[in-house]
Amino acid sequence: MTAPTLQDILEAALRIAPLAHRTPVLTSRGLDELCSAQVFFKCENFQRTGSFKIRGASNAILALSDEEARRGVVTHSSGNHASAVACAARHRGIHATIVVPNNTPKAKQETAAGFGGEIHLCEPTLAARSAAVEVIRQRTGATMVHPYDNEFVIAGQGTAALELMEDFPDLDAIAAPISGGGLLSGTSIVAKALKPGLEVFGAEPERVDDACRSFRSGKLEPLLSTDTIADGLRGALCERTLGIFQANVTDVLTVSEAQIIEAMKLIWRYAKIVVEPSGAVPFAMLMAHRGRFAGRRVGLILTGGNLDLDKLPWQT
Amino acid sequence: MTAPTLQDILEAALRIAPLAHRTPVLTSRGLDELCSAQVFFKCENFQRTGSFKIRGASNAILALSDEEARRGVVTHSSGNHASAVACAARHRGIHATIVVPNNTPKAKQETAAGFGGEIHLCEPTLAARSAAVEVIRQRTGATMVHPYDNEFVIAGQGTAALELMEDFPDLDAIAAPISGGGLLSGTSIVAKALKPGLEVFGAEPERVDDACRSFRSGKLEPLLSTDTIADGLRGALCERTLGIFQANVTDVLTVSEAQIIEAMKLIWRYAKIVVEPSGAVPFAMLMAHRGRFAGRRVGLILTGGNLDLDKLPWQT
Repeated sequence: MTAPTLQDILEAALRIAPLAHRTPVLTSRGLDELCSAQVFFKCENFQRTGSFKIRGASNAILALSDEEARRGVVTHSSGNHASAVACAARHRGIHATIVVPNNTPKAKQETAAGFGGEIHLCEPTLAARSAAVEVIRQRTGATMVHPYDNEFVIAGQGTAALELMEDFPDLDAIAAPISGGGLLSGTSIVAKALKPGLEVFGAEPERVDDACRSFRSGKLEPLLSTDTIADGLRGALCERTLGIFQANVTDVLTVSEAQIIEAMKLIWRYAKIVVEPSGAVPFAMLMAHRGRFAGRRVGLILTGGNLDLDKLPWQT
Repeated sequence: MTAPTLQDILEAALRIAPLAHRTPVLTSRGLDELCSAQVFFKCENFQRTGSFKIRGASNAILALSDEEARRGVVTHSSGNHASAVACAARHRGIHATIVVPNNTPKAKQETAAGFGGEIHLCEPTLAARSAAVEVIRQRTGATMVHPYDNEFVIAGQGTAALELMEDFPDLDAIAAPISGGGLLSGTSIVAKALKPGLEVFGAEPERVDDACRSFRSGKLEPLLSTDTIADGLRGALCERTLGIFQANVTDVLTVSEAQIIEAMKLIWRYAKIVVEPSGAVPFAMLMAHRGRFAGRRVGLILTGGNLDLDKLPWQT
C-alpha cells in the first residue's frame, strides 16, 4: 500500500481547483488568549458541501479514466464523505451510489441525495456495508471511492494543509482530527515535505481512541466504541494511514467529550463560525494540552460545519 | 448638521486601520439559489469586538485632539457600540464611561466592562440616559461619542462599504440594516460617490419601522415599539441620518420577525457563520422581496455576531 507524495498532492491541488474552494484562514485574539497559543483556523467548514471531504472525493473522481468514469462510483458513508462523493460525481457527470446504514437519520440521507447521489440502504453493520458495496461494484463496475484507504483521497485531503502552509509558512505545528486518518495522513505528508521541523498532531476523542492506541503500539488496535458527540470521527485507522502516521506524525492526543463541546462553543462564540463537533476536536486538544503549545503558532484544520442547528450539544 | 464626504470616509479608513480588521467577504451557492440573487456578505461579525461598531467608534476616538482625549469619552449603549467605544478608548489609552440602562442583562454589561469601559447604570428611559451622559460630560469634560448622530461615527461606518466595493466593484445593489441609520448613512455616501448607479437599500424589522415611515414621509416619525428579536435595531433616525437617506438611499424595506429568524438560520446553515438577528435583516429583506433583487449582485453588510448561544431564536 503506497502513500501519496508531495508531487501527488500538488497534482491534486491542480485537479480539484475547479470544484473545491480555496478556503480562508481565520484568527481570533480572544481564542488565542484562552489557549495561550496563536491559532490559525483553516476554515473547511466554508468548503463546498460543508467539509474538507470534497477535496479527496473530487481528486479520486477527477482522476478516473473516461472508461472508469462511465461505470460510476460507489462508496459507503452516512456523512460528509457521502455528500462529497455525490457532489464530485455530479460535477463530472457520472453516477454515484452511496451505501448508507438504514439507521442513519433521514436528514443526512437527504443531504447526500440532494447532491445527486443514489442512496442504497443497508443493515447497520460493517459486514453488511462491505457486502452492499461489493454487490454494486460487481454489478455496475463502479469504482469504490473509499473515505480514507485510497491514495487519491489522501492526496486530495492534503491540499488543505498545502494551502494553509502557503498562506502561513511560519507555523510551528499543525493539527487535524482523526477518524480513519485520511486527512491527517495528507496533512502530515505535506508538512514533512515542505518543512521537516513542523510538528504534526492528531486529535481524537478519548472515547474513540483507536488511533492514539495504534500510534503508540505500532499496530492496528480495535475501535472499542463509537459513542462520541464528534460523529465524523467514528472511523478506524487502516494499515495505510497508520504507516503514514508512524512516518510523519509527532503525536496523537485525546480529549474528553466535555472538552469537545466547550471548544466548539468557544469557536462559535469568539470566531463567529459554525463548526461541527468533529471540527472542534483539534482546538479542544490545544486547550487541554496547553503547556505543550504555549506561545506557539499552530495551524488547525476546522474540518466541517454540518450539524443540526436545532439541537446543539451544549443544550441538554 | 453636516454629512461626511467620501474624503472623510477615506481618511477614516486610514485612521482606523491599526484597530479595525479588513473583514472578508463570503458567498454561498446555497443561499444564492434560495434568494435567486448573487449575494456578497461583508462579514462584520468577524470584526474586532464582534460588530462593525468599532469602525465608527475608533474613527471618532482616534480623531480627538490630545487635549480632548485626555478628558475621556462617554456614550450610551447597552450593546455593540458600548464594546466598541470601550475597546477604541483602551487602544488610545483614555477613559470611557458607558451609560447603560439598569435593565440591561448582566452579560452585556460585562462585555463592555471587559473591554475596559466604566459602566454607569441609569434608569431605563431616554430622559434618564441623556441626563446621565450630561452629568458625566459636565463633570469630566468627556466627549460624547454618539452611536450614530456624529459625523466621525458615520464616516467610520462607511469604511465597511468602501472595502466591500473595492473587493467587488461590480455590485448592482448594497444593503444594510437600520437602527439610528449611521451604518446605512456611511454606506450610502460611499456608494453614491463611487458608483452613482448602485442602488442602496435599508432593511428594517416591521415592528420598529420608524426609518421606513420617516423615509416615505420626509420627516422624523416616532418609534412606536422596540419589541423585536433584532435587538441591535431599536434606535430611531435623527435629522442628520434622515437627510443623508433622502439624498442617497433607493428604498427602505421591512421584514417580519419570522422572516428575520428564518434568514438568520439559513445564514448559519449555509454560510456556516454566526450572525446575530440584527445582522440577518438585510438577507431577510432579499428573501422577502425576491422579485426586486432577482438575478442581481447584492452586497449585504452582516453587521455582527454577538448573541447568547444558549438561547437561539428558532428554539422556543
